[in-house]
Amino acid sequence: MANSHLRTSPVVTFRNQFSVSHFDSDISTSISFSSQLPGFSISLKQVQTYRPSATMKPTSHFEELKVDTTLSPSVNAVKPSKTVAITDQATALVQAGVPVIRLAAGEPDFDTPSLIAEAGINAIREGYTRYTPNAGTLELRSAISHKLKEENGISYSTDEIVVSNGAKQSILQAVLAVCSPGDEVIIPAPYWVSYPEMARLANANPVILPTKLSSNFLLDPEILKSKLTEKSRLLIICSPSNPTGSVYPKQLLEEIAAIVKKHPRLLVLSDEIYEHIIYSPATHTSFASLPGMWERTLTINGFSKAFAMTGWRLGYIAAPKHFSSACNKIQSQFTSGASSISQKAGVAALGLGYAGGEAIAIMVKAFRERRDYLVKSFREIDGVQISEPQGAFYLFLDFSSYYGTEAEGFGSIKDSDSLCRYLLDQAQVALVPGDAFGDDKCIRISYAASLSTLQAAVERIKKALHSLTKPALV
Amino acid sequence: MANSHLRTSPVVTFRNQFSVSHFDSDISTSISFSSQLPGFSISLKQVQTYRPSATMKPTSHFEELKVDTTLSPSVNAVKPSKTVAITDQATALVQAGVPVIRLAAGEPDFDTPSLIAEAGINAIREGYTRYTPNAGTLELRSAISHKLKEENGISYSTDEIVVSNGAKQSILQAVLAVCSPGDEVIIPAPYWVSYPEMARLANANPVILPTKLSSNFLLDPEILKSKLTEKSRLLIICSPSNPTGSVYPKQLLEEIAAIVKKHPRLLVLSDEIYEHIIYSPATHTSFASLPGMWERTLTINGFSKAFAMTGWRLGYIAAPKHFSSACNKIQSQFTSGASSISQKAGVAALGLGYAGGEAIAIMVKAFRERRDYLVKSFREIDGVQISEPQGAFYLFLDFSSYYGTEAEGFGSIKDSDSLCRYLLDQAQVALVPGDAFGDDKCIRISYAASLSTLQAAVERIKKALHSLTKPALV
Repeated sequence: MANSHLRTSPVVTFRNQFSVSHFDSDISTSISFSSQLPGFSISLKQVQTYRPSATMKPTSHFEELKVDTTLSPSVNAVKPSKTVAITDQATALVQAGVPVIRLAAGEPDFDTPSLIAEAGINAIREGYTRYTPNAGTLELRSAISHKLKEENGISYSTDEIVVSNGAKQSILQAVLAVCSPGDEVIIPAPYWVSYPEMARLANANPVILPTKLSSNFLLDPEILKSKLTEKSRLLIICSPSNPTGSVYPKQLLEEIAAIVKKHPRLLVLSDEIYEHIIYSPATHTSFASLPGMWERTLTINGFSKAFAMTGWRLGYIAAPKHFSSACNKIQSQFTSGASSISQKAGVAALGLGYAGGEAIAIMVKAFRERRDYLVKSFREIDGVQISEPQGAFYLFLDFSSYYGTEAEGFGSIKDSDSLCRYLLDQAQVALVPGDAFGDDKCIRISYAASLSTLQAAVERIKKALHSLTKPALV
Repeated sequence: MANSHLRTSPVVTFRNQFSVSHFDSDISTSISFSSQLPGFSISLKQVQTYRPSATMKPTSHFEELKVDTTLSPSVNAVKPSKTVAITDQATALVQAGVPVIRLAAGEPDFDTPSLIAEAGINAIREGYTRYTPNAGTLELRSAISHKLKEENGISYSTDEIVVSNGAKQSILQAVLAVCSPGDEVIIPAPYWVSYPEMARLANANPVILPTKLSSNFLLDPEILKSKLTEKSRLLIICSPSNPTGSVYPKQLLEEIAAIVKKHPRLLVLSDEIYEHIIYSPATHTSFASLPGMWERTLTINGFSKAFAMTGWRLGYIAAPKHFSSACNKIQSQFTSGASSISQKAGVAALGLGYAGGEAIAIMVKAFRERRDYLVKSFREIDGVQISEPQGAFYLFLDFSSYYGTEAEGFGSIKDSDSLCRYLLDQAQVALVPGDAFGDDKCIRISYAASLSTLQAAVERIKKALHSLTKPALV
């Protein structure tokens, strides 16, 4: 057939035919690396082997030039997930032989506990590989209903629960369901990268409320009160927090609830995906369990983080029927139900016992040791500011005192992005710039890696920071 | 905690507090059943065991009444997937003990071939349970790239391929990526239920082009030509077709391509998910393989249908980089990558050989026998019109000569919806009304069931049709 031959012309020929979108430029910023790293060009070439070039077919050249490559404006307005892009790129570098230490991903470094894995294997063996109901199997939704009641003190019937391909999908569907164009989605910063983009996908306006490191990145109720308007539709609370590791104390949530109550249009999306990864004396409170809040809350949770099940793609929402039904409807047109195999594994995960039992306790103990090590280590580095995380597996460190410095052969460190590029380049440690989370002073370090890996990373980072110099005063 | 007790008040108390949405009413239409079927009320009660009722908490009653349950207008405009709803409901009936023959689902009745299943099991055993790259593993995308070149004669590099949680997600993301508000999505009817809803989700307008049973439900190029405008952005072609089983001959696709070429804004989404389920002498042509069409085509495919992998949730899009990148970006905010386990299974599926090899050939042979049986059987029934399907596993039969008849104790058969309700009620056979696919004269029968099951279904349907009587003339 006419178009089936391999094409080998350089990418630039192809690119010139199309307008460069916001997306292209954004991606290339977020994943660019200096030429000192070998392997990157190999990785690029690899994916271009089969690149077709319209210019090699002179007979139809004119017509192809006319193809309209415009993208939808709302999709153009959305940024790609920076954490996904950086993780993908760090993985590509490692595959190309660059000894990068990856501390960028939001993913436990543990294997899925064996009882869960066995349940997945049994599902396949037993031919449990057909479509499930759109909202998830009744078996899994019953187990989730039971878990939410026993562990979180919140009652949801099985038809108030919708299982999705990961909590990310659950959150997006909830935002799309409840937000009308022009509504405001209230997002405390630092925030998980996807919240503002999801608001934009719903044609809603993200309203970012900054928090302070000195307040452990927790939302000040007075700021919340001052920013709410008639347009405010959804407040997103993530506790334990990605990227800060902060845990909202019950009393603070009650103060927030008292404010929420006064705004009839305001709902709360409570992202509790890191619930089980928490360090005593901190404790987790489900927002929906607060008096009067059940009716206003969309509770999000999933299996990826606590149960080391990221690759299984399994999350859920629990919400009053009116909202969960809307999420269910959206999902019936988005993806239908989640993997039948993963759902069987999810049932096994919830069968491990209260809060995941011993299998999860072992992981949390390891995370805690790593947190203690990193907090101690970074406290010893001049100019780094720390809020000790109480949950999740991230440190969100203020490195802004290094902004304005320079490195030989690299140039100046201006912001979190350039510092991360410098640390990847010089220390070969992949981290995520705080800019991606709405706080350019900070950098996120994931400690989902062994203690020895973290020790190596700290040494590399220390050394790289040591090489930074203040520019001569003019 | 205050909200944690079980609540047992009747559903109506809760419902009265909220406005009934378009969704609620639509769902209840599409899945309603007559009281003659036992078990249905049991199933409903089951899911309401934990239903919370705000009215049981007088202290906060007033505040809860004020919660604004408005849903997003664009989400309200979207209908839930009728096939998903009917399939879910038929499953619930069977679980409740009603001996329903389910011929409503778009799902092969075969088990996933064992080599594919083993690959999934091995992935779990080897701890391959982490996040994959957003667009899918390089291994799977390479295998897809190879498959598309060898089997379809179309060249896509690995970065022009995005793997998703099923082809449904791939299609939605493509529609969202390329359609701007007010654009037209051209959809030949009968169509797959989700196409128009996906257009609406993109704030685009579905433009439905009817086809005729006498033309084997194939799009008339003259009608296409007459309906294209400057707003026309995307033409969706599904071949082999769900729901009709029609296969577009290459020559017809070339005629369509000649028209498409004259419209610079017009792209083509070619849904090829049923590609391998095709009955010779019919052959499959990929739209992107036609001269000049590669640049304009978004090719959709997946693993669910040919490889009996519906529960694994794995599909993909292949498209010029500009479009595939946009889909990749959307996916990074929607769901991230698909299941790592399913992706390993997908690699094994593509390793089964050309067109899936012997494992698929056996299934296609069985589907062909069933088609032949059903076509012969329904041709013997008076007043049923048939276009013999050339692919997929559906018959789309015109039963409209039965409209206007009556059944004792049921009432009159007015349309495809009432006929399906009657057949479920009287014959206990679950089918999908053609109305869901944009053709109210017809009913879709899935023959993804054993010959003996199909024989029983035909007997039941015949008997039920026989009981229908013409009303006395006034």
